[in-house]
Amino acid sequence: MTSALLTDRYELTMIDAAMRSGLHDRECVFEVFARRLPEGRRYGIVAGTGRLLDLIRDFRFDDGDLDWLRDHAVVTPTTLDWLADYRFTGSISGYREGEVYFPNSPILVVDGTFAEAVILETLALSVLNYDSAIASAAARMVSAADGRPIAEMGSRRTGERSAVAAARAAFVAGFGATSNLEAGRQWGVPTMGTAAHAFTLLHDSEEEAFRSQVEALGSGTTLLVDTFDVPKAVETAVRVAGTGLGAVRIDSGDLPAQVAAVRRQLDSLGAVNTKITVTNDLDEYTIAALRAAPVDSYGVGTSVVTGSGHPAASMVYKLVSRRDAAGEWVAVAKKSAAKASVGGRKHPVRTIEDGVAVAETIYVGEPPAPNADERPLLVPLMVDGEPVADYLGAHGTGVARTHRAAAIAELPDQAFRLARGEPAIPTVYVTN
Amino acid sequence: MTSALLTDRYELTMIDAAMRSGLHDRECVFEVFARRLPEGRRYGIVAGTGRLLDLIRDFRFDDGDLDWLRDHAVVTPTTLDWLADYRFTGSISGYREGEVYFPNSPILVVDGTFAEAVILETLALSVLNYDSAIASAAARMVSAADGRPIAEMGSRRTGERSAVAAARAAFVAGFGATSNLEAGRQWGVPTMGTAAHAFTLLHDSEEEAFRSQVEALGSGTTLLVDTFDVPKAVETAVRVAGTGLGAVRIDSGDLPAQVAAVRRQLDSLGAVNTKITVTNDLDEYTIAALRAAPVDSYGVGTSVVTGSGHPAASMVYKLVSRRDAAGEWVAVAKKSAAKASVGGRKHPVRTIEDGVAVAETIYVGEPPAPNADERPLLVPLMVDGEPVADYLGAHGTGVARTHRAAAIAELPDQAFRLARGEPAIPTVYVTN
Repeated sequence: MTSALLTDRYELTMIDAAMRSGLHDRECVFEVFARRLPEGRRYGIVAGTGRLLDLIRDFRFDDGDLDWLRDHAVVTPTTLDWLADYRFTGSISGYREGEVYFPNSPILVVDGTFAEAVILETLALSVLNYDSAIASAAARMVSAADGRPIAEMGSRRTGERSAVAAARAAFVAGFGATSNLEAGRQWGVPTMGTAAHAFTLLHDSEEEAFRSQVEALGSGTTLLVDTFDVPKAVETAVRVAGTGLGAVRIDSGDLPAQVAAVRRQLDSLGAVNTKITVTNDLDEYTIAALRAAPVDSYGVGTSVVTGSGHPAASMVYKLVSRRDAAGEWVAVAKKSAAKASVGGRKHPVRTIEDGVAVAETIYVGEPPAPNADERPLLVPLMVDGEPVADYLGAHGTGVARTHRAAAIAELPDQAFRLARGEPAIPTVYVTN
Repeated sequence: MTSALLTDRYELTMIDAAMRSGLHDRECVFEVFARRLPEGRRYGIVAGTGRLLDLIRDFRFDDGDLDWLRDHAVVTPTTLDWLADYRFTGSISGYREGEVYFPNSPILVVDGTFAEAVILETLALSVLNYDSAIASAAARMVSAADGRPIAEMGSRRTGERSAVAAARAAFVAGFGATSNLEAGRQWGVPTMGTAAHAFTLLHDSEEEAFRSQVEALGSGTTLLVDTFDVPKAVETAVRVAGTGLGAVRIDSGDLPAQVAAVRRQLDSLGAVNTKITVTNDLDEYTIAALRAAPVDSYGVGTSVVTGSGHPAASMVYKLVSRRDAAGEWVAVAKKSAAKASVGGRKHPVRTIEDGVAVAETIYVGEPPAPNADERPLLVPLMVDGEPVADYLGAHGTGVARTHRAAAIAELPDQAFRLARGEPAIPTVYVTN
């Protein structure tokens, strides 16, 4: 199954109509941006770029796709012929994956004919809206964890393929591992896991369950201690595994008090190096609330794979410039109430003072002269239909994760406040 | 690529450990349920069942999967051999797809050995949590629309594969169509579309754009009238397409006032049969607020594919019963604070009085005697590893949609209040 039909019907019927008016081949510039951050957030993190480049490279209509479109009379035979030959041959630039973004940051810029570019709208937005929503939420959790490792464990709380994307996006944003095996295989994200309550309940006693797990996985494993009674389970865990027990996991209860009590108990049993991992419906706020508690690591599920209240990044894909009948470039923009946007080709830079970001400066029209205080934000991602290799596969995921760390390090302190507020830096337009 | 690695790592390591203790073959009953509805909702709609049965039937580890697991030492060679031969051979019963559910309704019951059943946990929850979240939100929008058609247009606001599932789930819940072509192909959901602002902006004038669209798609098409100025666009639309224009779409602005003005203008131009469709960030509340406005149909995007604030249905997959060493069935349950659940095999029925549902009655232990006032809720979905055909493919999607209408019709009036409140009927346990 190709990804070509992961597309809104109107993309194809617009091509149909544009072929009729002879304008389908007009050179165009489309831009992906978010009009706003989720309410009160200070910054967003771009994610999904590497995944998207893969999908665009492979975006083809196979015989099955074409047959279905023909049978359902979605487009005319002329357009079907055009779709049969389709591959994207244009160029794409954009923010690096892992980059910080703000309202109106043009995170992806697609140069191509109207038809070859408009057809990518649905797919591009599906990938970037979901993945960036996850990465943006995940980055806040990473900040809240203040250096302690976080694992993504939310596969069961989002669509089965989105789960893989979420694991990848959380890793880009600084999570250390995922429970999702496919994310390990496809994107090189380290995988981890403990055990479920079902494993304890399968056995005739908790002790027997712990013994099975330690025999199979070694004493470095993590034992789940809240199936029945936490203090009893901790005692059993150390008795079975010894003081070399890797970790215990707590998945319920009043966490700060619980965690402190478990730490005291582990220490009193001599298991001073046994770590405590907590996994009970955490989000950036509950993680922050555990800063003073002796937690060694976090596992986060629902809140990270659903963007912690904001499961879509509200990015849009807009035509901002096109050739006119005389071959000249014309800036275009919708003028609707509350949704007006700025037309024209953009050249965004991050303005830096003393190593700290102070503005998202977007030059409209001509590019600015190079300036040591302005870090250019657009880089080539796809040239003549071929992705730039650095952004692909597990390698690209790692590159994105590294870039995220550098981009985050540039932000002013107020970016890391969890409370609602304005974007950490303003977006400023400059017309050249 | 198989779906076998869309699985949390711990499912496989638990099998590893259970093989070590010799308990992997213990017969078990796992149950999927939600401890609660999203805050203030009155009922939920089960969706994803047909998709899940497909995925379970095809759940196999191919050579690529096994090689990756071996190379990363995820499980022992013995477990790898077991995985190589894996297919689910147990039985699954559950609520019909499209059924209404309440807190603790056992919507899926999986009978099999520990190992063959636990391995399906992640996949089953990914599918049911996402799809049911979408269907549950969509059903409220359908009620709010009060008979006027709604189309799902949110593919761009959720992961690219989740978009297909969302289109399907919204259709099960009563939406009439989707913009997503793959959902049309794979699940038989009717597809539809209009045009984007980019199409208007591609042309040298709005009039030229409308003319292209009408020439290509006929005067029955829907013209987007809010790119520049709505009254001018409506005038142009009728001039270009004639009074037989199918519809106009409004995607921005203050909808109730805007819609009324457009209706008056269309009527004054003689386009009395031209319909008005609105698509501006709608959810169940804004749809309800448009009841008095002359809207003919709705297009809903972000809010439906993200579950209108609740993108995951909080369903869990729990071991509730298993054989003991003597071969007897033992009810089991976790006892943790705030997450305690009821062990044992359940026999849920919907208690009906005068045609109206009054309780979700869950018999625990033995099944109850048949009773005309109790509609049994569990039906066979998979027998000895083979799905019951009625739930599969486009046919199954249609069956689910029909069942949803019947199940909704049984609910008391308070189920359809949009305001926050208690579940429409109580969940009552009866121990037999």
